Amino acid sequence: MALIVQKFGGTSVGTPERILNVARRALETQREGNSVVVVVSAMSGVTDNLIKLAKAVSPAPTEREMDVLLATGEQTTIALTAMAINAMGGKAVSLTGAQAGILTSGVHTKAKIENIAPRQIRNHLKDGQICIVAGFQGQTLEGRITTLGRGGSDLTAIAIAAALKADLCQIYTDVDGVYTCDPRVVPEAKKIDIIAYDELLEMASSGSKVMQSRSVEFAKKFNVPFEVRSSFNNNRGTIVKEEFIGLENVVVRGISIERNQAKVTITNVPDRPGTASRFFTALAEANVVIDVIVQNISVSGSTDISFTMNADELEKLGGLIDRVASDVGAGEVIKKSGIAKLSVVGIGMRSHSGVAATLFECLGAGGVNIQMISTSEIKIAVIIDEERIEQAARLAHEAFGLSA
Amino acid sequence: MALIVQKFGGTSVGTPERILNVARRALETQREGNSVVVVVSAMSGVTDNLIKLAKAVSPAPTEREMDVLLATGEQTTIALTAMAINAMGGKAVSLTGAQAGILTSGVHTKAKIENIAPRQIRNHLKDGQICIVAGFQGQTLEGRITTLGRGGSDLTAIAIAAALKADLCQIYTDVDGVYTCDPRVVPEAKKIDIIAYDELLEMASSGSKVMQSRSVEFAKKFNVPFEVRSSFNNNRGTIVKEEFIGLENVVVRGISIERNQAKVTITNVPDRPGTASRFFTALAEANVVIDVIVQNISVSGSTDISFTMNADELEKLGGLIDRVASDVGAGEVIKKSGIAKLSVVGIGMRSHSGVAATLFECLGAGGVNIQMISTSEIKIAVIIDEERIEQAARLAHEAFGLSA
Repeated sequence: MALIVQKFGGTSVGTPERILNVARRALETQREGNSVVVVVSAMSGVTDNLIKLAKAVSPAPTEREMDVLLATGEQTTIALTAMAINAMGGKAVSLTGAQAGILTSGVHTKAKIENIAPRQIRNHLKDGQICIVAGFQGQTLEGRITTLGRGGSDLTAIAIAAALKADLCQIYTDVDGVYTCDPRVVPEAKKIDIIAYDELLEMASSGSKVMQSRSVEFAKKFNVPFEVRSSFNNNRGTIVKEEFIGLENVVVRGISIERNQAKVTITNVPDRPGTASRFFTALAEANVVIDVIVQNISVSGSTDISFTMNADELEKLGGLIDRVASDVGAGEVIKKSGIAKLSVVGIGMRSHSGVAATLFECLGAGGVNIQMISTSEIKIAVIIDEERIEQAARLAHEAFGLSA
Repeated sequence: MALIVQKFGGTSVGTPERILNVARRALETQREGNSVVVVVSAMSGVTDNLIKLAKAVSPAPTEREMDVLLATGEQTTIALTAMAINAMGGKAVSLTGAQAGILTSGVHTKAKIENIAPRQIRNHLKDGQICIVAGFQGQTLEGRITTLGRGGSDLTAIAIAAALKADLCQIYTDVDGVYTCDPRVVPEAKKIDIIAYDELLEMASSGSKVMQSRSVEFAKKFNVPFEVRSSFNNNRGTIVKEEFIGLENVVVRGISIERNQAKVTITNVPDRPGTASRFFTALAEANVVIDVIVQNISVSGSTDISFTMNADELEKLGGLIDRVASDVGAGEVIKKSGIAKLSVVGIGMRSHSGVAATLFECLGAGGVNIQMISTSEIKIAVIIDEERIEQAARLAHEAFGLSA
């Protein structure tokens, strides 16, 4: 008899019919001889409506109260899901974050899970009940209601799986799993059977938004293997786990793309210690989130610095970079949107050479010009024109044998 | 500095604008130098929507889960109300029933308040915060969420006022207070300044539905004076409190009417011990709620028994009474709808004679035929034709000097 944690997101519980589906699946899993804990999000749309209500009474709602308000979303879903299971002849009880023993820090709207005391869950499981736990929420030691921020329900599921030492944690979503590339771009893309935490983290930070990085990092830290799969069919999903020898045999696990990027280049930056930091401190103070940074070695006492960001961030820049450039005596500031990032990810890269060569070769043969290159231990990212991104993804997917 | 508990029902918090009104009023009350606790219901319509959702996943939703579901309604309102006060520059915190220390029995959907441990409320008040407490809900000793059933938010307010030894408890509603009669029927009806608990209880059980009897009984038991007043204006309302000498000077406090009644008469019931109980046991088993029962003394070894009920209950009867009548060897069973009840209420009746005479006289002079009479210590009720009820109310209102 295994202990299985199943997590269903907002789309998977978006209507009463879908809640009935979730109930059916949980009951089936139990009838196969398992103990089952189900973690659910708010029904899709509910959170947005609550935020609208809050804005109608306050221009800047108190964060403590925002948490009290938003927590009603999952509380509604847990009650409905438990009712649905009971109506089908099963035995289920709902538990809010607080009741499930999820203890968090006191930072409202983005609290951190500090501890889980799953005494109530354990007791109900012992009684043969299916436990329906509210995702995304917890309480502080003093009993204040908190929420965990974006991706919070995944985090709840993985943390509960860790606390209960569950045999399996299933993250049900609206996709079949993690793909070698976005199937809308590369029709030959295949579902990945097994992927390492680090690979998924690199894919996620490169635009493959199956899960928030924070949940994957949590799973990695506590070594909780989990499966990403669809709530709309019975297909096997993608298992995410610690790396093991076999995983390295595949050099490239997947390719992710991120559109709508922008690039800023500052030319002739004087090559003095502390100059680069002037730019990035100013960017941080203006809350501009930047992605890739490239600076090449200086040959003539000055250098060029480039960085990329989501094109939406470009607005926040205003004349900021121009002012700093003038202050430090740099040259021109060139801003350019309409670019995109393609990332090739795989832990096998560590022990295999030639990945960069293969990537540059296939792009070059296709006439795709590379504007920037950035690498990590298990990733190579290139910045190219946005209108070439789909072509580039298909070329790379083919070149690394992912289409086979 | 006084401690004031203010309760706002579903209509009073039905829209964001109305919630802002509630916030403004609470803040004003605090700025006048008082400590303020606000008890709120779910926004009107919200509870019905939640019930609809529950019915969509289960034909007979588990009561434990129904409570978890419904409790989200008030939780939404407390968060919004606290936000609104904070947005106006005030200091407010929301508290769910559980957080407010409201301990109840474990009977889901109609739990009883067993104790209130208002430590959190007291601490927040000490900090100058306005406490916004969710009405209608509490938790059991084991931490299960419960709700208190109909009129539960009034009960919460009065129980908190009792626990905090509040100086005043204000029940804000959509009427200006308790009237001598329904103003839609008797235009001369006046708002009552002060009324005794027992009088309001008799008025409530006679169709004046300002508040559920259970909250008034609770207030009486713990001697919590309260004021019923409108959330839409600043008029003084009606104070409900223990009786005192001055209250008896008015013989009749008010008149209440109840339409849509039905009457059943069983003729020639053998006058043997236990015969009447046969009928009423059968009625109780069929869950028929009956109101007035009249049986006159027996002159010839048999008697007539009549009882009234809401006309909607008539359906449940079916052939029940006819079968029992035949079993015990009684005569005819006559069922009649289209009747109504008029009740004259006042604690002054105890020490004044002639109230019945005045009532019968004025009705007789107006040509209103009385079909049944029932009296209690502080009430006289008569059953008449429904089409005569408005005329009768105006006649009695005038005869007892309530129009002056």
